[in-house]
Amino acid sequence: MLKDFIVSEMPEEEELKAKLKEERAKLSASQMKIKEAGLPVMVLFEGWNAAGKGAVIGKVIRNIDPRFFKVATLDRAPSEEEKRYPFLYRYIKEIPEAGKFRFFDTCWMEEIVDGVLQGKMDEDTYTKRVHSINTMERQLCDNGYLVVKFFMNISKKEQKKRLDALLGDKDTSWRVTDADIKQNKQYDKIEEVYDKYLCDTNQSRTPWYIIDASDKKWAELQVLQFLNQGIDIALKNHTLNVPILQNTFPMEKVQKLSDIDLAGKFLTDEEYDLELKKLQKELKDLGNKVYRKKIPVIIAYEGWDAAGKGGNIKRITAALDPRDYVVEPIASPEPHEKARHYLWRFWTRLPKTGHVTIFDRTWYGRVMVERLEEFCSENDWQRAYNEINEFEKELSDWGAVIIKFWVQIDKDTQLARFTDRQNTPEKQWKITDEDWRNREKWDLYEGAIDEMIAKTSTTFAPWYVLESVDKKYARIKALKIVIREIKKALKG
Amino acid sequence: MLKDFIVSEMPEEEELKAKLKEERAKLSASQMKIKEAGLPVMVLFEGWNAAGKGAVIGKVIRNIDPRFFKVATLDRAPSEEEKRYPFLYRYIKEIPEAGKFRFFDTCWMEEIVDGVLQGKMDEDTYTKRVHSINTMERQLCDNGYLVVKFFMNISKKEQKKRLDALLGDKDTSWRVTDADIKQNKQYDKIEEVYDKYLCDTNQSRTPWYIIDASDKKWAELQVLQFLNQGIDIALKNHTLNVPILQNTFPMEKVQKLSDIDLAGKFLTDEEYDLELKKLQKELKDLGNKVYRKKIPVIIAYEGWDAAGKGGNIKRITAALDPRDYVVEPIASPEPHEKARHYLWRFWTRLPKTGHVTIFDRTWYGRVMVERLEEFCSENDWQRAYNEINEFEKELSDWGAVIIKFWVQIDKDTQLARFTDRQNTPEKQWKITDEDWRNREKWDLYEGAIDEMIAKTSTTFAPWYVLESVDKKYARIKALKIVIREIKKALKG
Repeated sequence: MLKDFIVSEMPEEEELKAKLKEERAKLSASQMKIKEAGLPVMVLFEGWNAAGKGAVIGKVIRNIDPRFFKVATLDRAPSEEEKRYPFLYRYIKEIPEAGKFRFFDTCWMEEIVDGVLQGKMDEDTYTKRVHSINTMERQLCDNGYLVVKFFMNISKKEQKKRLDALLGDKDTSWRVTDADIKQNKQYDKIEEVYDKYLCDTNQSRTPWYIIDASDKKWAELQVLQFLNQGIDIALKNHTLNVPILQNTFPMEKVQKLSDIDLAGKFLTDEEYDLELKKLQKELKDLGNKVYRKKIPVIIAYEGWDAAGKGGNIKRITAALDPRDYVVEPIASPEPHEKARHYLWRFWTRLPKTGHVTIFDRTWYGRVMVERLEEFCSENDWQRAYNEINEFEKELSDWGAVIIKFWVQIDKDTQLARFTDRQNTPEKQWKITDEDWRNREKWDLYEGAIDEMIAKTSTTFAPWYVLESVDKKYARIKALKIVIREIKKALKG
Repeated sequence: MLKDFIVSEMPEEEELKAKLKEERAKLSASQMKIKEAGLPVMVLFEGWNAAGKGAVIGKVIRNIDPRFFKVATLDRAPSEEEKRYPFLYRYIKEIPEAGKFRFFDTCWMEEIVDGVLQGKMDEDTYTKRVHSINTMERQLCDNGYLVVKFFMNISKKEQKKRLDALLGDKDTSWRVTDADIKQNKQYDKIEEVYDKYLCDTNQSRTPWYIIDASDKKWAELQVLQFLNQGIDIALKNHTLNVPILQNTFPMEKVQKLSDIDLAGKFLTDEEYDLELKKLQKELKDLGNKVYRKKIPVIIAYEGWDAAGKGGNIKRITAALDPRDYVVEPIASPEPHEKARHYLWRFWTRLPKTGHVTIFDRTWYGRVMVERLEEFCSENDWQRAYNEINEFEKELSDWGAVIIKFWVQIDKDTQLARFTDRQNTPEKQWKITDEDWRNREKWDLYEGAIDEMIAKTSTTFAPWYVLESVDKKYARIKALKIVIREIKKALKG
């Protein structure tokens, strides 16, 4: 794409000025429409050093009220802290919320290209990274994001001229780094790597726009034109329904909830105490190993109200070093969470390597409560099974242990526990009207849960059912599974 | 995709039957909605020999009224006749019209894969073909088509079993070809080629659905489910606005119409007669060479009303063998043309190799009359520049000479000619009320034409302006350009 790139002709000075004025006004006028439509706008700037990425961002944002935009500066290698998260993490953290702009002064491209150039990234990893990026960009679009990607292009000669000019002036010479000079020397080789990446990530709904950045005003005009055009089009798409992709992940065989045998899954107090002590000791040791081996562990709990999730989680955490784990109780999303891709609040709550995060309720809300209460469209939740599998695959590829528990009880057991909560003063806070309302929808939920488990029990992140009519039994089973899966990961 | 493909579990006999019934009814019910919404539905079936492509198509269509579907059987190598057209031609000919289904018993995939397997297709051609296919599928989607792609998958063992069963019965053994047996023997090698193609063409809006075809009823159910799902989603998308891609084609520098010097572009009768005779003789010889060298030639005429297109075309055709050329006068599209992708009526009018087609008005109507009269949406005509460049690039890559003429006169000259037509009984048929109405929009048209010429003057299919205040001058200029371009092609 870069080598064939044809510089369109720059307009004459006066026409350029007139058009700039027009496009600036257009962008300015669109911010309220974006706000009203709740459109999140993500603008990626990549390109050559000294091509003026920062400068053009500086000019573009002058047309937007500071409340409506932020600039993410990711033009640097990941920090040691960031390296302990999946590589997409630091970028996803920065995605805009509905109705707002987020400008990226370099995004995921630079990290990949740098890796290739420094010989740190083999072909397989490159392919995987490109796939992750394409998947994420597709997910963002599918979920209503406008993603506009610019590559600021200058020739080798022009880059040299700019670097020389900076170096020639005492006040600016500090701005030129060794990396800049090296880039200019290796321009041709780097161009090939850029070019390959641009081709590999040029998707129909997130195409690249290559900007002739040889002149600053002209570059600004091109950026504004493409950006305004993209906004125009995105604002016209009210509800976008996108194809549901086929599941291509390897799946585990699963049972329907109604086929699960709850009877006889019972432990005596003695059995329980004995097992609990033994298993917790074992998990404690494993927790330390996981920490030292820097394996991230994600444990996800879903289950019926009053199924015993809280008590179960406590038996796990009791065995762990409080510095190494976090429990994340998941309620309805906050406004700032609701305003972003629905997986964002989970991406940002991931454990770093060597740590454990336990989610008390999870991203599966999308295909249970959000589906049944119509908090999202049918297309949204139908798409979500695959989006979630993609999310978990990303985590699994990163090296995470992912354990998903469905805590199962029958309807009578729930009624007994609800009634007990209602009648026991110190437990009354645990039961709400909503619990009773949800209970009325038991059958609808059961259908949705069966579909969820069937469609998301991948081999790399399977569901485990915890039969929890006897809570003790469920706790011991959970501990055994956690221990087994961590052991597997330590060996692997 | 194929190797990792996980066979989802087939439901039990009874559940399967119930679901089949449900999905069949759903498809049946959707045909009227498709009709009303004017949705064209293109369903591609690819896959292994003996996987049951034909059988499943046969079952699917039972649910649709014969008025609403057709089956295109392209499960064969292109004929000698078809080989004289661009490779996409025989497929594009078959695309469905709005409100109807078209099922493809193999489509462009098979031809590519066969080429690779027979060693007839080098890597460059493969890459180019895949690019052409992805571009075409994207164009179809962008223009409101639903494109659903199925790959019917069976294992090597299953294929062998089926072929053996056919061979073992006198009544069916004739159905097994040498190619079938060869495919089974080379299954693993072919699977790799299939797999690569599936990955290379798996686009977010035209994804592949891989069908486990080990059981016929089960295969039918999967197909119906994915098809119904796709229809559901497509029906929900009323007007889809898609990103305008950046022009990435190499462009020629062009002038604005208002900067074109019309004065002094004049020939005396003597000069004209002399030149005309000489040039037509030359073109006649070249026409023969083009025929023998099998070069396709496309000459496109656009211009103001009364600019002299007709007379100009006559001076070209006078030099050609009537068996070798066709003039295609382009008026408003017929209903069956309007019901398809707007380039369809031009695709189907292409010359075969060695022939010349002259279009009197062209596909550029999209960005002139259709734009200004709002026969298409803004997104439609804005997208069209790139779509047209892609179309012409496809033709150029095929080896076609493409010459585009803009026949230019000024407003006063048009008025004089209109008045003359009005006042001369034998010319009155040439002037209509519409011509006068269009004339009122001269300035709007001029703006649209300037944009059109600027955005579609690619190096491989540039515009040539014919200054036609003196029609003789314009005719001689046209002849010279046609001669020059054909000579270039004969050398190349």
